[in-house]
Amino acid sequence: MENRYRLLIATEDKKGLIHQISGVLFRHNLNIEINNEFVETQFNRFFMRTDIGGEPTDSLFNDLREVLLPDHQIKLIKKHKKRVVILATKEHHCLGDLLLRYKYSELDFDICAVISNYNSLRSLSESFGVEFHFVPHESLSREEHEERLLSIIVPLNPEYIVLAKYMRILTPQFVEIYKERVINIHHSFLPAFIGANPYKQAYDRGVKIIGATAHFVNNNLDEGPIIAQSVLNVNHTYSAQDMAQAGRDVEKQTLARALRLVFDDRVFIFHNKTIIFE
Amino acid sequence: MENRYRLLIATEDKKGLIHQISGVLFRHNLNIEINNEFVETQFNRFFMRTDIGGEPTDSLFNDLREVLLPDHQIKLIKKHKKRVVILATKEHHCLGDLLLRYKYSELDFDICAVISNYNSLRSLSESFGVEFHFVPHESLSREEHEERLLSIIVPLNPEYIVLAKYMRILTPQFVEIYKERVINIHHSFLPAFIGANPYKQAYDRGVKIIGATAHFVNNNLDEGPIIAQSVLNVNHTYSAQDMAQAGRDVEKQTLARALRLVFDDRVFIFHNKTIIFE
Amino acid sequence: MENRYRLLIATEDKKGLIHQISGVLFRHNLNIEINNEFVETQFNRFFMRTDIGGEPTDSLFNDLREVLLPDHQIKLIKKHKKRVVILATKEHHCLGDLLLRYKYSELDFDICAVISNYNSLRSLSESFGVEFHFVPHESLSREEHEERLLSIIVPLNPEYIVLAKYMRILTPQFVEIYKERVINIHHSFLPAFIGANPYKQAYDRGVKIIGATAHFVNNNLDEGPIIAQSVLNVNHTYSAQDMAQAGRDVEKQTLARALRLVFDDRVFIFHNKTIIFE
Amino acid sequence: MENRYRLLIATEDKKGLIHQISGVLFRHNLNIEINNEFVETQFNRFFMRTDIGGEPTDSLFNDLREVLLPDHQIKLIKKHKKRVVILATKEHHCLGDLLLRYKYSELDFDICAVISNYNSLRSLSESFGVEFHFVPHESLSREEHEERLLSIIVPLNPEYIVLAKYMRILTPQFVEIYKERVINIHHSFLPAFIGANPYKQAYDRGVKIIGATAHFVNNNLDEGPIIAQSVLNVNHTYSAQDMAQAGRDVEKQTLARALRLVFDDRVFIFHNKTIIFE
Repeated sequence: MENRYRLLIATEDKKGLIHQISGVLFRHNLNIEINNEFVETQFNRFFMRTDIGGEPTDSLFNDLREVLLPDHQIKLIKKHKKRVVILATKEHHCLGDLLLRYKYSELDFDICAVISNYNSLRSLSESFGVEFHFVPHESLSREEHEERLLSIIVPLNPEYIVLAKYMRILTPQFVEIYKERVINIHHSFLPAFIGANPYKQAYDRGVKIIGATAHFVNNNLDEGPIIAQSVLNVNHTYSAQDMAQAGRDVEKQTLARALRLVFDDRVFIFHNKTIIFE
Repeated sequence: MENRYRLLIATEDKKGLIHQISGVLFRHNLNIEINNEFVETQFNRFFMRTDIGGEPTDSLFNDLREVLLPDHQIKLIKKHKKRVVILATKEHHCLGDLLLRYKYSELDFDICAVISNYNSLRSLSESFGVEFHFVPHESLSREEHEERLLSIIVPLNPEYIVLAKYMRILTPQFVEIYKERVINIHHSFLPAFIGANPYKQAYDRGVKIIGATAHFVNNNLDEGPIIAQSVLNVNHTYSAQDMAQAGRDVEKQTLARALRLVFDDRVFIFHNKTIIFE
Repeated sequence: MENRYRLLIATEDKKGLIHQISGVLFRHNLNIEINNEFVETQFNRFFMRTDIGGEPTDSLFNDLREVLLPDHQIKLIKKHKKRVVILATKEHHCLGDLLLRYKYSELDFDICAVISNYNSLRSLSESFGVEFHFVPHESLSREEHEERLLSIIVPLNPEYIVLAKYMRILTPQFVEIYKERVINIHHSFLPAFIGANPYKQAYDRGVKIIGATAHFVNNNLDEGPIIAQSVLNVNHTYSAQDMAQAGRDVEKQTLARALRLVFDDRVFIFHNKTIIFE
Repeated sequence: MENRYRLLIATEDKKGLIHQISGVLFRHNLNIEINNEFVETQFNRFFMRTDIGGEPTDSLFNDLREVLLPDHQIKLIKKHKKRVVILATKEHHCLGDLLLRYKYSELDFDICAVISNYNSLRSLSESFGVEFHFVPHESLSREEHEERLLSIIVPLNPEYIVLAKYMRILTPQFVEIYKERVINIHHSFLPAFIGANPYKQAYDRGVKIIGATAHFVNNNLDEGPIIAQSVLNVNHTYSAQDMAQAGRDVEKQTLARALRLVFDDRVFIFHNKTIIFE
């Protein structure tokens, strides 16, 4: 299992593409061990995720680029645990689940730090040996608060930012820095119940199913590419609080499922949607 | 199993209520065979669904009324197949499923007639021995069209109107006539994707779950009390047409499930929500 | 919300029973606030779960007994957090989830202690402030090992024993002591894949769904009354290890759901099945 | 969409395989429009499903064979509706659903005939314009009965035999003739409740979920490769009949889902399991 690499390609499609890409790999003496491909026909775009055996050399990139049309993206990833910073506010359920999964290696990630605008999740985080930063937002502008967040986050050099019930809106500037790398868990089966008090809304509407949506964050709140969605059944005997508990349960499951897909490099983003090789 | 009756009571709650109601039944020599109760505490309202053994006499109603507070509703139902008129447009999937269930008694109902503003479902309906009425809406005002519908529906005296993908909006006047008796299947996991082209919307948004909602119709389109909701998983390989097929499948399942609950008298409506004794 | 009581009755059914029970409550000035009833018709047995308002006096029991047929059970429960001892072996996922729910009061219970035949879950338990006992089973007979367990458990006086992936079979003697109070999470959608290596079995059989079953323990391994079952979808790309991870996820969800029902006194046991007022 | 072909390859894996296969296609001027690949690592077997654009010539097969190791299977399929014979007994629900899907092209198949050992489904089949054959089994040996079946089936030359609740066991001889082409819907979440009266078994066991399994038929009853599985929730109020109705609903959904996958050439069989490109 040593020295395993993963190749991710997103490119304009053309005739003979797979033959050419696989030819480059063959000439580099690299074996295709797992291979997923998808062509988005509306925009003629080709996506490929390949686990390769063997040791790539520096010239692989150039050789691949030569066979691709100009509009392409290539990533060669040496398999590793993804570096993650978690932002939270006061709710414990998603954070707690992620800390357990971290401790027992149930997700392929390292939690570099937990940062919250409240101090209440400190003991939970620290009991798992994870450093915790309390960055209050009071009397700060959104920009000032994010500056303080970034002064902690940037040196940690995370690959992903996970919003584990972080209840503040990020600025476009922040999102731009970690473009397509910020993952949020939304308290609803999007696009329903956007906004505040979702479980009160769900209760008032008398829904029979509670859902949750994990998605990448873009500049339009709650409208980024969807990674995973799940639901739980509820009924008329559920109070708004019971619905909130059901919501917590479905949120933590959905977030964990989405992160498994992302950390395993299974998720491509294209035109505000995801292509997921499950 | 002959002569089985069901008693439905919705009333303002008070101390000793169950004792008093059960006392009336006991004095009438009626046995409580299945009993469901629920108290909506926010508005202090009591709901009860009771299958009773024995033969009720005319005085039962009066005796029950005497022990209830003024704001109450009572229904005594001799168990029977519910009389239903189905309205449809051009889509076959919900209608086809209901016709099969009718033929093989998989739902406790009789279909008196199918009425459509197109003629395309005639052969399907008639192949199951169900009368079909083609009532085109072209060059008619909504009121004129509904008048023609009602001239067919009213003489059939249905207990419920089922909108099996009937793609026209009913007037408040129509809804008022069959108040809390019109059931619709909505192409979405309400409250998401209200409006036209739901599967195109779902495809564009890149959702991972397709849902459907069966609900009673009130005057606010798609906002009536929810009876049942279900979902199916989809993924990025689904075209908008594939999503539509998944939608058809989940719609017909959800509608059938909702109708089973309604025809079995398990559904109370209160404050635009349902209380369902499952 | 203070002084809230719950009444649980299981008894042979008879005509007028609800009237008589509700009459006793009325005369004791107790209000029926939530009421669930079910009659098992095959054996003519009546089940009732009632949340009552007011303060019961000592004579309530006697007065209730007078109106019930001889074959009955009554419990009057002052609402409280259930005292629980958790038995585990080496797997962390169910225990971790329960510890989080305990810390944040997401389940209505107190964890008195965690006991394991291995020492590996000590730090996890103690990081949540829960006492941990390491009771190795090596070189002990099953009876000797259970004696040591009981020497810890009995003084703690738990109402329920939760087997959170406790991988040893309990003797009939142990089960008898905590009859209908030992809850197990089983690595399968019972009655499938009974036995060892369930995920290897599931992988070999090529199943498309992984399940879990929470059940009460009786003397026939894996055959006690079922409380809750859930499933997750899997596919051919899942290795046996991936299936095991899916299994862990569905196990912890299913156990938590079952415990919510049990600790909320919603579960009756009758003829090796459960009646659950959800 | 005219002249669309699909290529299915199952072969021993080797280095450079994708490059060589895609090279053959490229030299034949064929475009890879949709491509799925999977390598079963335990047995080193490669599976590929490719939708190709262009018009293959006779030499394609030979050229492909030249680049594959000896142990391989190739199928080149011109896309078409699959020819299907349905075997049934007395239950209507799966057959009815398939007939509706046939009439409205919701599955990519043609139903050549329905054959049953009872006459009760004749009117249903014929109302959809499908020929129906009544082949009673009484006073016939299993072999004699199958001979009569085959005298009808063989001339119809079906690609698949669908057992839509056909309640008789097929002989190994019959299964051999239509090897890996007979699809059954099983009344359970296999491997649970194998045998007769599954819903009575489920009721007696007090399960909380009802399942169904669609699978290919091999010589070990109920042990063929699984294609699809689904579940529905049930509870203690369900009678054995209610569970049977829930079973019918989940069976017809599961069978339709499995057939969609099979008729779309998404299912490979290998070592008694399925590889499904969803």
